Amino acid sequence: MNLRFRLQVDLRDRSVIQKLFAETKFDAVIHFAGLKAVGESVEKPLLYYDNNVIGTITLLEVMAAHGCKNLVFSSSATVYGWPKEVPCTEESPLSAVNPYGRTKLFIEEICRDVHHSDPEWKIILLRYFNPVGAHPSGHIGEDPRGIPNNLMPFVQQVAVGRRPALTVFGNDYATKDGTGVRDYIHVVDLADGHIAALRKLSDSKIGCEVYNLGTGKGTSVLEMVAAFERASGKKIPLVMAGRRAGDAEIVYASTKKAERELNWRARYGIEEMCRDQWNWASKNPYGYGSPESNGVMK
Amino acid sequence: MNLRFRLQVDLRDRSVIQKLFAETKFDAVIHFAGLKAVGESVEKPLLYYDNNVIGTITLLEVMAAHGCKNLVFSSSATVYGWPKEVPCTEESPLSAVNPYGRTKLFIEEICRDVHHSDPEWKIILLRYFNPVGAHPSGHIGEDPRGIPNNLMPFVQQVAVGRRPALTVFGNDYATKDGTGVRDYIHVVDLADGHIAALRKLSDSKIGCEVYNLGTGKGTSVLEMVAAFERASGKKIPLVMAGRRAGDAEIVYASTKKAERELNWRARYGIEEMCRDQWNWASKNPYGYGSPESNGVMK
Repeated sequence: MNLRFRLQVDLRDRSVIQKLFAETKFDAVIHFAGLKAVGESVEKPLLYYDNNVIGTITLLEVMAAHGCKNLVFSSSATVYGWPKEVPCTEESPLSAVNPYGRTKLFIEEICRDVHHSDPEWKIILLRYFNPVGAHPSGHIGEDPRGIPNNLMPFVQQVAVGRRPALTVFGNDYATKDGTGVRDYIHVVDLADGHIAALRKLSDSKIGCEVYNLGTGKGTSVLEMVAAFERASGKKIPLVMAGRRAGDAEIVYASTKKAERELNWRARYGIEEMCRDQWNWASKNPYGYGSPESNGVMK
Repeated sequence: MNLRFRLQVDLRDRSVIQKLFAETKFDAVIHFAGLKAVGESVEKPLLYYDNNVIGTITLLEVMAAHGCKNLVFSSSATVYGWPKEVPCTEESPLSAVNPYGRTKLFIEEICRDVHHSDPEWKIILLRYFNPVGAHPSGHIGEDPRGIPNNLMPFVQQVAVGRRPALTVFGNDYATKDGTGVRDYIHVVDLADGHIAALRKLSDSKIGCEVYNLGTGKGTSVLEMVAAFERASGKKIPLVMAGRRAGDAEIVYASTKKAERELNWRARYGIEEMCRDQWNWASKNPYGYGSPESNGVMK
């Protein structure tokens, strides 16, 4: 069994959202709807500004009109840009280095302004670090269209034989093994972070608050690949390539604020992330698609 | 005779804009459509993000779809925030200190991304300083609804007897007479700057370029009031009040880049600005409205 979640509502379509809110009384909204590929955002910035920014402004307006003023928004560690210091705390300087990042930064600023104008609004901005893994059931996982932009979906496609080798962008960074370091977080931990955020919205008098969702640990590309090889028993051939423009060297979270205020912390490490990623991959080598379609879902 | 210009197109209404572009081949667009009251933007941020940001994204998308990729956009000196150094050059650090300012900053960044993604786009961002005055004919001038947010419309309403006194926000700034210093520019000079920008779009291979439109001269509130008193022969009673939150101390433009690259410079000084402001005011004491409506146009 594959579970498929496809919400076909266009956030930018005000009349549709208005109808949704007129029909149902919502206590809160978790707003995950955003395009998220950095490279695509550089090529098609208006697509990103339209989908992410117009979508969010429209949603906020309709929510306000219906008196629903509780929001959890999926922001991203991308708002730390190329951090000068790690770990990134919620007070670290913000910058955006591509249109995707700017959509997140703009939306964060819009949310702060909205709360400031009307303190009835309670907004939690969750800055995701690098979500990986899959549901432990093996039924729900990530299935990107086209060439994956992120490390683990690419590793997974190599492991199941859909791609010959993993390209590693840069092995001359000032990190333990020269490859980029990120803070990978298991998607189940990430999901739990949203529950904690929802609880926070209803429990206390917060305003517009930001929390990092990460593990607080930095893992290099080569460390992650090694962990996946252990979990899967598969060898991942590597091709070393130059640095990719725009990539930061080392990014990981300070998780203290989320631990303290959301009473949440990540429970899983990279072993579990790779175990569940492989469980999903081996059960669904072509994701939600088929071998004939090379993974493209009809 | 009063000339009235009211364009009733809602930029956010994609189908209307599409129809407009389908019916007419435009060589270039000058996009002036924006809400501009700082205080209102703090109270109603979504109104500003909706009107200014959604409007611009929608316009850019429709322009791209119709192959019209020449834009002159009305930005603002507000993107210099509270400048650490004056004059502000086009390379000065940018910041926004209220939602109105953020809409301008966001749109500038969106325009840069759009040009970067498709070099066919030629975009000129004009950073207006403080436009004042009126057309010398006395037929066209500013007629703000409600209490004017800006100095000169307020002065004008005092001069014609519609308000008892001018409130001066702050007379303890580190300026020549303690009042805030701004770079006032005659609206006719500003209009000429747009013609120069349009010419620049068609004449040379520019990309996304920014120009200050100001005179390069800083004038204090008291200096401006004195000039208006000379031009009008009216005494403007003053009420001194505390600083207004968010106001910068001293802001004026470097105009070198516009002089060099647009072959444009402001021709009028504060004497002409006040002369034409008074000419408009005395011919139209209630703007486009009537005494009965206290200036509200039906």
